Amino acid sequence: MNYACLIIIGNEILSGRTQDLNLAFLGKRLNKLGIRIAEARVISDDSDVIINTLNECRSKYDYVFTTGGIGPTHDDITSAAVANAFGVPLIRDPEALTLLRQHYANPKDLNEQRMKMCEVPKGAKLIDNPISKAPGYQIENVFVLAGVPRIMQAMYEALKDRLVPGEPMKSRTIIAFIGEGKLAEGLGNIQIIHSQTEIGSYPFIRDGRLGTALVLRSTDQKALDEATQAVNVLVTNFKVEHFEEISAE
Amino acid sequence: MNYACLIIIGNEILSGRTQDLNLAFLGKRLNKLGIRIAEARVISDDSDVIINTLNECRSKYDYVFTTGGIGPTHDDITSAAVANAFGVPLIRDPEALTLLRQHYANPKDLNEQRMKMCEVPKGAKLIDNPISKAPGYQIENVFVLAGVPRIMQAMYEALKDRLVPGEPMKSRTIIAFIGEGKLAEGLGNIQIIHSQTEIGSYPFIRDGRLGTALVLRSTDQKALDEATQAVNVLVTNFKVEHFEEISAE
Repeated sequence: MNYACLIIIGNEILSGRTQDLNLAFLGKRLNKLGIRIAEARVISDDSDVIINTLNECRSKYDYVFTTGGIGPTHDDITSAAVANAFGVPLIRDPEALTLLRQHYANPKDLNEQRMKMCEVPKGAKLIDNPISKAPGYQIENVFVLAGVPRIMQAMYEALKDRLVPGEPMKSRTIIAFIGEGKLAEGLGNIQIIHSQTEIGSYPFIRDGRLGTALVLRSTDQKALDEATQAVNVLVTNFKVEHFEEISAE
Repeated sequence: MNYACLIIIGNEILSGRTQDLNLAFLGKRLNKLGIRIAEARVISDDSDVIINTLNECRSKYDYVFTTGGIGPTHDDITSAAVANAFGVPLIRDPEALTLLRQHYANPKDLNEQRMKMCEVPKGAKLIDNPISKAPGYQIENVFVLAGVPRIMQAMYEALKDRLVPGEPMKSRTIIAFIGEGKLAEGLGNIQIIHSQTEIGSYPFIRDGRLGTALVLRSTDQKALDEATQAVNVLVTNFKVEHFEEISAE
């Protein structure tokens, strides 16, 4: 298992103006590769905060992903902060320049501000952006991505082959229409016995009915099957409606 | 302006199984009180991680909110970690016990696991939960809340009068159907002149049309009005469709 950290950069996420969707997307996709997001941080558009957070996280995790702040306006300060964190200059990348020149039919449209989107920390390797052309980039174990979900997702497709896969986490979900408080004792005992499998219990209300989603996760298929079997027996003994749900995790 | 940090506790958020909605809710509500979320962290259900994150953040910010991990099952470890972080024992709160006794008609249903929801760090003050009764609590500047959004939101209503309001952030949003790259130069100049107002630029695609949301935020109404006027002039000069959007922020 490899571990990653996601740094979500943007005042608009912290103020509640914009709902972040990038953590859920990356969490699911990276899981499939056996890379687990161990932590995510949402931080403001503040240069010192970006530099400090990045330096703390890049030494701690196998991979760091950042989203947001690589556009053309004054509040897009991510690239300057990343260069600063790595102690390298920000350079105008010729390949990025070519991409943007091709994108803007009228050369006048490629103004100084848009040119900022060609600037990357020295040593960075571009990440393709098929949507709006301005690239993301990788520097060492850090991947700098756009904040707009559709563009971030396209960038992920372009970079995923650069990641070293770990052992993928396999998961099973059992939905039971019973309060988790009733399952808690049995579930706790199962967790102790089946320690190779992580068991999460998430209460929900669906169409006015109280229920619990039991999510089992392990890299070991046999351990997962055994724990799932034990949870199925537990739930069956309560004689309540339950079923296994196909999980995308 | 007072500053807050939100600690979102839960593997299910990091894995992408569950979409966090609590940051956006708290971001908006706290803004209205003049309290700004300066940082949010999503962390795993790991005791040491919770303790360290909580101790780091509670000394750094006026307020810390946590969500998740206060239910009855084995994976709900937040309260034990909070007590540990504060160096106080976990005690069974008599008031919480009364609440749960009233809630469970059949005394047999209040089993040992559900009793865990009556345990709070010594010195904590309960926060009412009108939905499922098991309370949240406050200890010093830390507010420990449920993860389920409906319950978390009800708890927020019950605690908000305990917060010391700051100067509320006022905001205006101008929507313009033009790429942000064209506005960038003028916008940067306006930001320099109107430094008391924070100007954010967020590109979007709506019904296939590219546009930019320009969000202006300030605690000073006069400064905000002046900056908004300047942005309106800038956009008008481009002769594109634009309008002011009522913002809930």
